[in-house]
Amino acid sequence: MGKTVAEKIFSGKCGKEFRAGEVVMAPVDGAMIHDITGPLAINVFKEMGGKKVFDPKKIIMLFDHQIPADSIAAAENHVMMRNFAKEQDIFNYDLKEGVCHQVVPEKGRVKPGDIVVGSDSHTCAYGALGAFSTGIGSTDMAFVLKFGALYFRIPESIKVEVSGSFQRRVGPKDLILGLAGDIGADGATYKCLEFCGQTFAEMDMSGRMTCSNMAIEMGAKAGIVPPDRVTWEYLKNRCETEPFLLNADEDAVYFEKRSCNISSLEPKIAVPHNVDNVVDVSEVAGRKVDQVFIGSCTNGRYEDFKEAAEVLGNDKFSNDVRVIIVPASKDEYLKCLKGGLIELFVEAGALVEAPCCGPCMGGMFGLLAPGEVSLSTSNRNFRGRQGSTEAEVYLSSPATAAASAITGVITDPREV
Amino acid sequence: MGKTVAEKIFSGKCGKEFRAGEVVMAPVDGAMIHDITGPLAINVFKEMGGKKVFDPKKIIMLFDHQIPADSIAAAENHVMMRNFAKEQDIFNYDLKEGVCHQVVPEKGRVKPGDIVVGSDSHTCAYGALGAFSTGIGSTDMAFVLKFGALYFRIPESIKVEVSGSFQRRVGPKDLILGLAGDIGADGATYKCLEFCGQTFAEMDMSGRMTCSNMAIEMGAKAGIVPPDRVTWEYLKNRCETEPFLLNADEDAVYFEKRSCNISSLEPKIAVPHNVDNVVDVSEVAGRKVDQVFIGSCTNGRYEDFKEAAEVLGNDKFSNDVRVIIVPASKDEYLKCLKGGLIELFVEAGALVEAPCCGPCMGGMFGLLAPGEVSLSTSNRNFRGRQGSTEAEVYLSSPATAAASAITGVITDPREV
Repeated sequence: MGKTVAEKIFSGKCGKEFRAGEVVMAPVDGAMIHDITGPLAINVFKEMGGKKVFDPKKIIMLFDHQIPADSIAAAENHVMMRNFAKEQDIFNYDLKEGVCHQVVPEKGRVKPGDIVVGSDSHTCAYGALGAFSTGIGSTDMAFVLKFGALYFRIPESIKVEVSGSFQRRVGPKDLILGLAGDIGADGATYKCLEFCGQTFAEMDMSGRMTCSNMAIEMGAKAGIVPPDRVTWEYLKNRCETEPFLLNADEDAVYFEKRSCNISSLEPKIAVPHNVDNVVDVSEVAGRKVDQVFIGSCTNGRYEDFKEAAEVLGNDKFSNDVRVIIVPASKDEYLKCLKGGLIELFVEAGALVEAPCCGPCMGGMFGLLAPGEVSLSTSNRNFRGRQGSTEAEVYLSSPATAAASAITGVITDPREV
Repeated sequence: MGKTVAEKIFSGKCGKEFRAGEVVMAPVDGAMIHDITGPLAINVFKEMGGKKVFDPKKIIMLFDHQIPADSIAAAENHVMMRNFAKEQDIFNYDLKEGVCHQVVPEKGRVKPGDIVVGSDSHTCAYGALGAFSTGIGSTDMAFVLKFGALYFRIPESIKVEVSGSFQRRVGPKDLILGLAGDIGADGATYKCLEFCGQTFAEMDMSGRMTCSNMAIEMGAKAGIVPPDRVTWEYLKNRCETEPFLLNADEDAVYFEKRSCNISSLEPKIAVPHNVDNVVDVSEVAGRKVDQVFIGSCTNGRYEDFKEAAEVLGNDKFSNDVRVIIVPASKDEYLKCLKGGLIELFVEAGALVEAPCCGPCMGGMFGLLAPGEVSLSTSNRNFRGRQGSTEAEVYLSSPATAAASAITGVITDPREV
């Protein structure tokens, strides 16, 4: 009986054949902590009597949620984490590199077959590189910091086979929003989504990251794209591992198999207040928006901004909309800058902020007043997530966001 | 008996000859409100039974302190101000243009001889253009919004005649810090500083803005550079007024006359916790800094960043310093971007944020933890201004800030 990708990863890492449903103590190849959840993990690590972390080289520390510090408390957390990094000889990217889920792959800190944990729910993003990566709580992270391993129940997998090519101005975000709508917020709880098929084979790494990132929005433990030419091309110059195959066996056993063809997929939008409230953009077109955010670990890459720029063309953003652009990392920022996109966006009326999580979780800027509407390329639209509980957050692709930022109302990007 | 510039401005505006010490109800040519003090002024205006503002074309509204909104309360204030602007037909620059004291001159909203008030203490900045401009409280502003005029006691003037040329990497910020140190925080209380002499004649508008901006740090009501070729050159394409002279009379009566020569002026720094605690940079060189902020209405212009970039050269910023760069306006941002400075700073490790007040007043980002040290090109270093009351803020020129950001310790810019 064959294995799923998740079963192969756990079996490989644990040196023994394991099946979905079994509980294993698995070693981790990487453990990511950021400025919000890191301090909790470090405090628990210390309370547990932790002296030395299991392996400083496998710990990834950075600050992305509240940077530069937006409160004295945040500044104190940063100091505490910097001191911990020094004590423990952990390399700290600090606030200089960008959003965790962009920086970890970018810096070659994850590769196919790895088990990576992060104290952030969207850690599933690194599934785009063929890793089993998942978000864990800060207490679990404290255990990982000390022991370098964690108990996992190996998840059953859901095979998601996608065929067809995207129409113009429809892309990976529309696909994953569509899947979230179909599968539902709890439709894949504790499962591993295994993405495959022609569409994923043809998808660039940026699009794969968008999809894997949002696996958690269906409740999934992970969302893996098995490594292929695109993966190894991305990893060239990032890590030294030679390419290898990590595909599911033909006769692997799945919890469920789903397939879809996206050749006629429409631009999708998640309407308030849940990620799986997904409709075609055309159904809500014309709704006034007050703020548009293009960025986040879900859609903050050069490819996303390029798409937005193509929609923008020589147009300007509406005077009635605050357009907030936040590249997900320094590297992505510089790609945008060198490609002329920063200038284009600023000339068109946007605010371009330094790489960070931005308004995604309503932390330090871009908060909404009661009654206001935000259109956001990020991953969650829960009530109150970007400010007032009486505000509304819609989620879309960068193309839809750009189109709506021009017109001031929710707009199908194929119509501008 | 001749007149000072301030006496000429008030006499001209009031259509009658007035002298320092007299109290007049003077009409205002411009009234600036921003997102912090504007809501207070508008509320009082309404409480006063204000229906229509005196002249919507003379009111300048913009948001620069908390943008994009850093709290739900801030977002609500913005909504309230936007609604007021619409009701009253006031043009609202909203959050799209930058810091008030940069935007008002840039958009041609002030010219020589004008009386301009703003509900912000650094409104004295427009003295750089030969206007009498000053900061007022929100209640006074409510009166201005309704009546377009305000009682002023015409101030006595202090003539500040400066001669000599700046040495390499010494500039207007060093001059004005030096003056603040000499005159003291209350040495010019309610006086009008009248800047003149060879140094001011040779100074560009950016440097003049730095100097006038900080007049309030000596307690001055205003800090005026009489209009000259530089002024009218700056105003070309910004406002339609034909050039005119507005110099003090030879026999004008001054409260005090000061003169200095800056040919051997050293780079200056204001040490914690007062702006007039000014010493030569060499006296505190070697002090570790955690954060460097280059920006603000005092030093957030292209010329400031150009100076910082020249000090930086091909070097990198220290890994141990958070370097925060915030151009003061969209126009200044675009000048920096097109001049390659944004790329240079980001490559060197800085965070470049969208135009706003930034960490100057410790509002929404760049706050300090206890024990941390900030070097800032802004205008105030009061205890707790940038975060913890146990942190320290030093004030310097952009050149000194850049040099210190490279080395990680306070550094004389002539030594890098």
